[in-house]
Amino acid sequence: MARTNAQRPARRALRRPPAAADRALASLGARTVPTAADHPHWTPLNRIVIELVYPEIDGGRYPVKRIVGERFTVWADVFRDGHDVVAARVRHRAAEDGDWKVAPMAHHDNDRWTGEFRLDRMGRHFYTVDAWTDVFATWRRDAAKKLAAGQDTMLELLEGREILEATLSALRGSDAACVRDALARAAAGSAPDRQCAALLDDKLAGVMARVGPRADQSSYARELEVVADRRRAGFAAWYEMVPRSQGAVPGRSGTFDDCIRRLPGIRAMGFDVVYFTPIHPIGRVNRKGANNSLDGGPDDPGSFYAIGAKEGGHEAVHPALGTLDDFARLVAAAQKLDMEVALDFAIQCAPDHPWVREHPEWFRFRPDGSIRYAENPPKKYQDIVNVNFYGPHREALWNALRDIVLLWCARDVRIFRVDNPHTKPLPFWEWLIREVQARYPDAIFLSEAFTRPKMMKALAKLGFTQSYTYFTWRNFKQELTDYLTELTRTEAREYFRPSFFPSTPDILPQFLQRGGPPAFKIRLVLAATLSPVYGIYNGFELCENRGLPGTEEYADSEKYQLKVWDWDRPGHIKQLIGRINWIRGENPALQGHGNLGFWRADDDNVLFYGKATEDRGNLVFVAVNLDPFEPHETVLWFPIAEMGLGDADAFEVEELLTGAKHLWRGSPQRVRLEPESNPAAIWRVRIWKHVEYRAPTA
Amino acid sequence: MARTNAQRPARRALRRPPAAADRALASLGARTVPTAADHPHWTPLNRIVIELVYPEIDGGRYPVKRIVGERFTVWADVFRDGHDVVAARVRHRAAEDGDWKVAPMAHHDNDRWTGEFRLDRMGRHFYTVDAWTDVFATWRRDAAKKLAAGQDTMLELLEGREILEATLSALRGSDAACVRDALARAAAGSAPDRQCAALLDDKLAGVMARVGPRADQSSYARELEVVADRRRAGFAAWYEMVPRSQGAVPGRSGTFDDCIRRLPGIRAMGFDVVYFTPIHPIGRVNRKGANNSLDGGPDDPGSFYAIGAKEGGHEAVHPALGTLDDFARLVAAAQKLDMEVALDFAIQCAPDHPWVREHPEWFRFRPDGSIRYAENPPKKYQDIVNVNFYGPHREALWNALRDIVLLWCARDVRIFRVDNPHTKPLPFWEWLIREVQARYPDAIFLSEAFTRPKMMKALAKLGFTQSYTYFTWRNFKQELTDYLTELTRTEAREYFRPSFFPSTPDILPQFLQRGGPPAFKIRLVLAATLSPVYGIYNGFELCENRGLPGTEEYADSEKYQLKVWDWDRPGHIKQLIGRINWIRGENPALQGHGNLGFWRADDDNVLFYGKATEDRGNLVFVAVNLDPFEPHETVLWFPIAEMGLGDADAFEVEELLTGAKHLWRGSPQRVRLEPESNPAAIWRVRIWKHVEYRAPTA
Repeated sequence: MARTNAQRPARRALRRPPAAADRALASLGARTVPTAADHPHWTPLNRIVIELVYPEIDGGRYPVKRIVGERFTVWADVFRDGHDVVAARVRHRAAEDGDWKVAPMAHHDNDRWTGEFRLDRMGRHFYTVDAWTDVFATWRRDAAKKLAAGQDTMLELLEGREILEATLSALRGSDAACVRDALARAAAGSAPDRQCAALLDDKLAGVMARVGPRADQSSYARELEVVADRRRAGFAAWYEMVPRSQGAVPGRSGTFDDCIRRLPGIRAMGFDVVYFTPIHPIGRVNRKGANNSLDGGPDDPGSFYAIGAKEGGHEAVHPALGTLDDFARLVAAAQKLDMEVALDFAIQCAPDHPWVREHPEWFRFRPDGSIRYAENPPKKYQDIVNVNFYGPHREALWNALRDIVLLWCARDVRIFRVDNPHTKPLPFWEWLIREVQARYPDAIFLSEAFTRPKMMKALAKLGFTQSYTYFTWRNFKQELTDYLTELTRTEAREYFRPSFFPSTPDILPQFLQRGGPPAFKIRLVLAATLSPVYGIYNGFELCENRGLPGTEEYADSEKYQLKVWDWDRPGHIKQLIGRINWIRGENPALQGHGNLGFWRADDDNVLFYGKATEDRGNLVFVAVNLDPFEPHETVLWFPIAEMGLGDADAFEVEELLTGAKHLWRGSPQRVRLEPESNPAAIWRVRIWKHVEYRAPTA
Repeated sequence: MARTNAQRPARRALRRPPAAADRALASLGARTVPTAADHPHWTPLNRIVIELVYPEIDGGRYPVKRIVGERFTVWADVFRDGHDVVAARVRHRAAEDGDWKVAPMAHHDNDRWTGEFRLDRMGRHFYTVDAWTDVFATWRRDAAKKLAAGQDTMLELLEGREILEATLSALRGSDAACVRDALARAAAGSAPDRQCAALLDDKLAGVMARVGPRADQSSYARELEVVADRRRAGFAAWYEMVPRSQGAVPGRSGTFDDCIRRLPGIRAMGFDVVYFTPIHPIGRVNRKGANNSLDGGPDDPGSFYAIGAKEGGHEAVHPALGTLDDFARLVAAAQKLDMEVALDFAIQCAPDHPWVREHPEWFRFRPDGSIRYAENPPKKYQDIVNVNFYGPHREALWNALRDIVLLWCARDVRIFRVDNPHTKPLPFWEWLIREVQARYPDAIFLSEAFTRPKMMKALAKLGFTQSYTYFTWRNFKQELTDYLTELTRTEAREYFRPSFFPSTPDILPQFLQRGGPPAFKIRLVLAATLSPVYGIYNGFELCENRGLPGTEEYADSEKYQLKVWDWDRPGHIKQLIGRINWIRGENPALQGHGNLGFWRADDDNVLFYGKATEDRGNLVFVAVNLDPFEPHETVLWFPIAEMGLGDADAFEVEELLTGAKHLWRGSPQRVRLEPESNPAAIWRVRIWKHVEYRAPTA
């Protein structure tokens, strides 16, 4: 076919390719044209796509949470154009270390890769993903295919040798010997395809995967963060106490020494964290009276959340409780029992808090010169004033608040339950928690936020170790299943570590008020087996459930008055609590969070769920009658396949509250749960594998 | 209560708060402690949380796609600590403009906000979200609550006046008058609560929302990108043709002039894009023969995907097709018919492509000096060599490839179907598309990738305007429903714009091979009504379905030999195609992508779905018999509630293929679909609202 004249201009255009672009540009006039180079992410490198890294919260904005010592698994989509062989790894380092380490990734399925490493120290770690083209593995796969197809591999042999020889120059020791040996075998005068085959052996492939040439080195665009908390951050049973209620003399405040006397009994119930409501001096200005009345008199002790008086502020302890030395003895006594003291960090101040006088610049005043007390109109909290977090003296205030926490850390407290964090700025908490944990990586912060769902999650994301939850109001099958599924099966499980409290000083739910002792047992079993972190508030073990009518407030709440309890009063459930906590300790499955599964129970009053360790070595099922009034008998459907059971296998269950054992076969099993005597059953499962026969051992 | 000695040290610690921190630090020795300041994201500003912005692809790494002129809706979670009133807006700008504009956001539900703006020009736009505390609105809400509760509002009055007076100093015109007027009414000597009430009126609130003080100004951390493509990127019917097959003389290549003669007939079928397989000179080295045989002789025309010969490369046209002037006439002729020419961009070269001689540095050579041709071992593509994208002359090569595209843009081509993009580096495509669209924002790129799902999505994310899909192999109810749900209901719909082709030169699916003309009708209706962008490959209108046995290849494929068609041969379905394209043009519902819903049909052989415009002004339902062999009669369940029908309403349907009308009541409607005569029904719906009575107009 003859070339036509008309084609020549095009040909010239190719020889001077910029001309076309220039013309195109010129046609746009002087306009500035944004090009690829202006794009914040584009780069000619990163040929290999690395994306959808999991876990990753909000594009890497927030860290995920794990427990020190755990293996941390990272997932990513990794792929490139064409057919070359790709390899990938997780790259990670501890924040305070600086040395990057690597862990290999393996292809899982559908371009999804996974790798893992051990979080070998407490604190923050960074991780990201690298990938590259494995030059030798690509050559090897193609050469093997051609060999298998009987094609000529003369050129493959030469190319394989080239790769190996280039690699060899940088090698020493056994790696060098392996490559040298392969090259020698490939040069041994046999037919080219026999020589080529000599370069395909597995040992050489293993060496070259480690030391061979890597092309197209690519890295994920972000370094992500994981916080490795200590064990107790992820598995703990809390006992919340109001220290002034621990005494024995009516009308007189309990003391730290009274608290010390209480510790062995609390330990006997199986708790390992003793959390104290605020222990600081209480303001006298606008002090509240009994049942939150406005007419508190000089004899009223006041709300311990109205912090600060002439005796001191957040750094001080209430004189009626004792001295700082007494407090130090309490901390030591708890440690001796393998328990730990947690304190309340509540930022609000009483109007007579020393800071109001010393640092008026940290507060807000109204046009008449009066200090602005807390309000949520039309409600007023006259005994509390709030600091001004974004005033002109922000830095000094934030430092002072941080130093309060550091001070209590220096006094050997490492767990802080933070009061109403959702009414203080989120950047403040993110800053404070990082500041404290940089110095005390073992510091634990529990977010006491009962508020809108996104705020609760935001607090967890920014750094709170644990979070209060809606568990307190989730009583029935569907709502418990939905909520626990959200907590354990969605991304929330990577950062939101729930703490289940059936009641708090502020919340005595209707379920407990109306359901009596069976309700307390039900809620106890649910809290303790659905969540590895849970707690009770003192009085729960006595089934105390007198509320102010029509509210969730306790009648005669110890928030506003002195109280004396008989900790052995009839009807207490301390043995049950101790047994439940013992069961938690004995069964690693109950110490995990993401390992919860709900299973079918035919009656809507019965909740049936199970937890297992990763290797299924510990397998626990729980059935709870959610109705505090009536017994329910129903069929539970055990998940035979998920339990690893074959058709011919049986399973032994031990009911851990009673010790009763059964040998069961098949999925459906009938159970009857009585509110008073046995509202719940907790079974540990052992599999009886069918054995065809065993040959006698020689 | 007396202060004890033991408390004094603590008190001192507070007065010099750094002391505690210093001691804590000292205890760590000289170790460097990372603090909040080291965190890449933390800042004391951004008090307001702005997160989960939608749409956002991979943490903002990739742009989303829209059509110019559309309203673009942005969602975000926006909230802050405490109870203050928050306001938010979308901030956006066109990439080439630079001026930020703003659009208000409104609270939707559960801390979710939404706002929208119009994409008023083609090309890239950036968007992000701002939020702030509305100081006056906060004051106003609290003051109103106190007034309603009958509380004293003396101080509120003073504070409200303060805010207004501070604002007033910066105001002019009607805003100033409004504020001044309110202040005057509030000073009018009446009772304080009457005065306070004067500051609560709605007009003042509106002015202050615009001009009042804003605290806690916060912005989302990222600026996100949206590409506004032109209309044809989102709604088009393509006709793919092999230009050399458009002639009338057996054994002679068709020409551009033959193509020009074909255009009116293609327009009559309703197509608006005419896409040509490669039009460049074809290599002679290792030329393929008929049916992809290796023994191509001098009379074989060769595969048009083996691009380049002594007559020229990607810049040239094949002499047998005509000249560049002929091509220019073809482009102009198409434009005159309101059609547009699309070209194939296939980067591979024939071994005798001029670049191999002129730029050997852009290719790879083997140890024996031979050029490396394309392989996927053990398969070999001897008539094709690939460029070396990451060789030492990467920049010159990439620029040359870009300039090829710019050259064809300069020749008035703006649509490129890109051959096998998944075998070329992804950063190259991201760069090339941005480079071209910076100069030609109207350039459209269709990704011809039939490969693994994540690669197909990655190409769409990085910038391809449209993408080939798995539709070609999705024939039955569940698989169609699943696939379309993925494309229209997941995040993919924000960046992956599908193009549905029932067949291509490389793929003649078994469904068409075995199902005959009814199969062609079925696939046509599905492609054209499920996706606003679709196309057919020439011969489809003739129901051409002769395949190579056991493959998806056409027998005697025109990829390897010259062919002459009788475009009016008996059995063609051109009228049906024309009718379907007319229906698409008449019904805006069929021009949208995310507006697809599947509805119940009792027979698994019948697929039933609907599309609606946002205002439900256009409502189209489609039922397709997926079985090409037998008729099926079944009940369709119209989604009465989604259609906006009340119990007493009826609906009129017009079957758009036949013109038949029915008046229907209630959800279930019986239909019979015959493979030969009516394999599908397309109903336009009009609602007959029940009218109680209408009063006569005066």
